[in-house]
Amino acid sequence: MSNVRTPLPVLQPTGVEPCCPPLAERPFTPEEAERAARMFKALGDPVRVRLFSAIASREGGEACVCDISDVGVSQPTVSHHLRKLKEAGLLTSERRGTWVYYRVEPSVLAAMGALLGSPAAA
Amino acid sequence: MSNVRTPLPVLQPTGVEPCCPPLAERPFTPEEAERAARMFKALGDPVRVRLFSAIASREGGEACVCDISDVGVSQPTVSHHLRKLKEAGLLTSERRGTWVYYRVEPSVLAAMGALLGSPAAA
Repeated sequence: MSNVRTPLPVLQPTGVEPCCPPLAERPFTPEEAERAARMFKALGDPVRVRLFSAIASREGGEACVCDISDVGVSQPTVSHHLRKLKEAGLLTSERRGTWVYYRVEPSVLAAMGALLGSPAAA
Repeated sequence: MSNVRTPLPVLQPTGVEPCCPPLAERPFTPEEAERAARMFKALGDPVRVRLFSAIASREGGEACVCDISDVGVSQPTVSHHLRKLKEAGLLTSERRGTWVYYRVEPSVLAAMGALLGSPAAA
């Protein structure tokens, strides 16, 4: 099952109910905490943050793996980290000819931003 | 030294330059990625997400350790996770009498929210 390509759930770009409410709104339930921790954990590695940022900041939020290999690690390591980001639902990928293209859905960024939006921040 | 209450660096609530630019603004430098990954990693555990959320959602963004122990793990485990959150700069703590109080600075939430704010989201 884990290799089946399941599309990401369609999230509202406004991020109203993405994964979870904002962290500061009310205590998370165990289920919400599991989902949020999964996303955070995927970004809990500097190479993955660099890859995610490299993809997210490209026009269209999409990059060929050939575009994002300058993060100081080997190609197999890049592939490993991209797979981890994909498994966490932060990236989608599509093969076109020789190359695999990775994509950050804007809704993913919106969902994570909403999670961290603090109604108490002042 | 570690028990001295040191306020977190004052960050702009608007999150202009908290730790890093938004992930989707430009590729992160290695140093920015290290800092961002450290924050994400600290929240990459469901118990830590629940503790962080429990504290952040209390009035004043502050909780006694006695208030937040119902996360299904032992007290030493709670303490371990709170220490990890503190080491990552996500919480501060202060002893008052018998209890230690933990606090989420609104600036921390603002900084993390800014990191995830996507100028490309649409």
